[in-house]
Amino acid sequence: MSTPAGLLERMVEQRVSLRLKDSRELAGRLLGLDDHMNLVLDDVEETTAEGSRRLGRVLVRGSNVISLTASAGLPPKRN
Amino acid sequence: MSTPAGLLERMVEQRVSLRLKDSRELAGRLLGLDDHMNLVLDDVEETTAEGSRRLGRVLVRGSNVISLTASAGLPPKRN
Amino acid sequence: MSTPAGLLERMVEQRVSLRLKDSRELAGRLLGLDDHMNLVLDDVEETTAEGSRRLGRVLVRGSNVISLTASAGLPPKRN
Amino acid sequence: MSTPAGLLERMVEQRVSLRLKDSRELAGRLLGLDDHMNLVLDDVEETTAEGSRRLGRVLVRGSNVISLTASAGLPPKRN
Amino acid sequence: MSTPAGLLERMVEQRVSLRLKDSRELAGRLLGLDDHMNLVLDDVEETTAEGSRRLGRVLVRGSNVISLTASAGLPPKRN
Amino acid sequence: MSTPAGLLERMVEQRVSLRLKDSRELAGRLLGLDDHMNLVLDDVEETTAEGSRRLGRVLVRGSNVISLTASAGLPPKRN
Amino acid sequence: MSTPAGLLERMVEQRVSLRLKDSRELAGRLLGLDDHMNLVLDDVEETTAEGSRRLGRVLVRGSNVISLTASAGLPPKRN
Repeated sequence: MSTPAGLLERMVEQRVSLRLKDSRELAGRLLGLDDHMNLVLDDVEETTAEGSRRLGRVLVRGSNVISLTASAGLPPKRN
Repeated sequence: MSTPAGLLERMVEQRVSLRLKDSRELAGRLLGLDDHMNLVLDDVEETTAEGSRRLGRVLVRGSNVISLTASAGLPPKRN
Repeated sequence: MSTPAGLLERMVEQRVSLRLKDSRELAGRLLGLDDHMNLVLDDVEETTAEGSRRLGRVLVRGSNVISLTASAGLPPKRN
Repeated sequence: MSTPAGLLERMVEQRVSLRLKDSRELAGRLLGLDDHMNLVLDDVEETTAEGSRRLGRVLVRGSNVISLTASAGLPPKRN
Repeated sequence: MSTPAGLLERMVEQRVSLRLKDSRELAGRLLGLDDHMNLVLDDVEETTAEGSRRLGRVLVRGSNVISLTASAGLPPKRN
Repeated sequence: MSTPAGLLERMVEQRVSLRLKDSRELAGRLLGLDDHMNLVLDDVEETTAEGSRRLGRVLVRGSNVISLTASAGLPPKRN
Repeated sequence: MSTPAGLLERMVEQRVSLRLKDSRELAGRLLGLDDHMNLVLDDVEETTAEGSRRLGRVLVRGSNVISLTASAGLPPKRN
């Protein structure tokens, strides 16, 4: 079984896409996170219905996250 | 009685459909979950009013889940 | 006094109707539940403003439940 | 002082009207309740902007309740 | 400093106006309350965009309260 | 570092403006508060899209507060 | 790994931009914060769909924060 916490840990340093409750999407490199699923992303590009803009480093409050997608292949699971 | 936790456990490795609060539907193979009903899905297809797209591996925050449906027959309950 | 927990317990194996916060209604046989009012239903029919569809077995997160109605007479209360 | 818990206890077996967050109103006889203000009502009539319908016995999750009104005079407070 | 709890205690038996999250306003005599700010009001008049109606005795779940206003002068603070 | 709790304490007896989730703004003198950020304001003026009105003394439930602004200069920080 | 708490600590005294759930954006110097992500900002400029205005010192309740962006380069991480 692949746990949510285990997946998040392997996503650190990878590029991810976030879907937020206010319907924004943020894509960036995941730098870190905590138990509330608060996330730190770098090189962020924000996409809304109006278009895209670059935001740099962003802290996202976990309670606003709907889902998180690995933008590319993940490194193999360590055993 | 079939408990929610027992059903979720038997759903691992099966294909499931999720209904989310933002009215998206995600269909994919359930890889794992935790006590907050955070879910890891693979081979995800997202369906919205606008259409469908493939998302790969997705982590969904449990608080956004409305309901979860087994896409096909479940394996028999182990006793 | 008839407690909510006692009513739920007697509803197991009965057909019930659920009203959800996203204004869907689900009707099915209640297979099980837990303390968060997460519910497992079988033979589910979903009704929305657009119509009905069959969903099979469904797990509903309790936080999305508004109300639950016994579709038919309940078995007598055990003393 | 009349506490909310004391009022609820005296309302058992009385007819009450509930206002819910989805703007439905439910009127029925209060059969029971618990500490989360989950309520069991009998002989329920549901009223929405579209009209009324009878629902029988209903369990309402407390988190959806806005307010609760005694439909008629309450029995005197016991001292 | 005048604490919220102290103000609420002095408001008992006074007429108050409540603003609720569903944009209703309730005016009535405050009979009692608890730690969740659940409130019991008597002689309640409800005002919405559509008009007013009398509701008698009402229990309001605290989580729906936005603000509470003293309709008239409060009795002096006891020291 | 200036903590939120420290700032709130220094704001007591000062005029403040509150932004609430229902998009109302309340301006008044802050009389007191508690750990839930429930606030007591006096001489309150409420401003909405429709206009302004005076409300006197108001208790605001903290969960409805978005932000709080010092209307004027604050007294110096005590060390 | 760069934790959310660590990033917030390094952001103190820096200019940051906040995105709030009511779709306002606040830009200002971060003076302080607490464990609920309640934030104190100074020299705040608020931007909405209608335009901008200066607000001075503002306390923001953490539960309204969606994301927080460093307006400029951050000081190097201390080891």
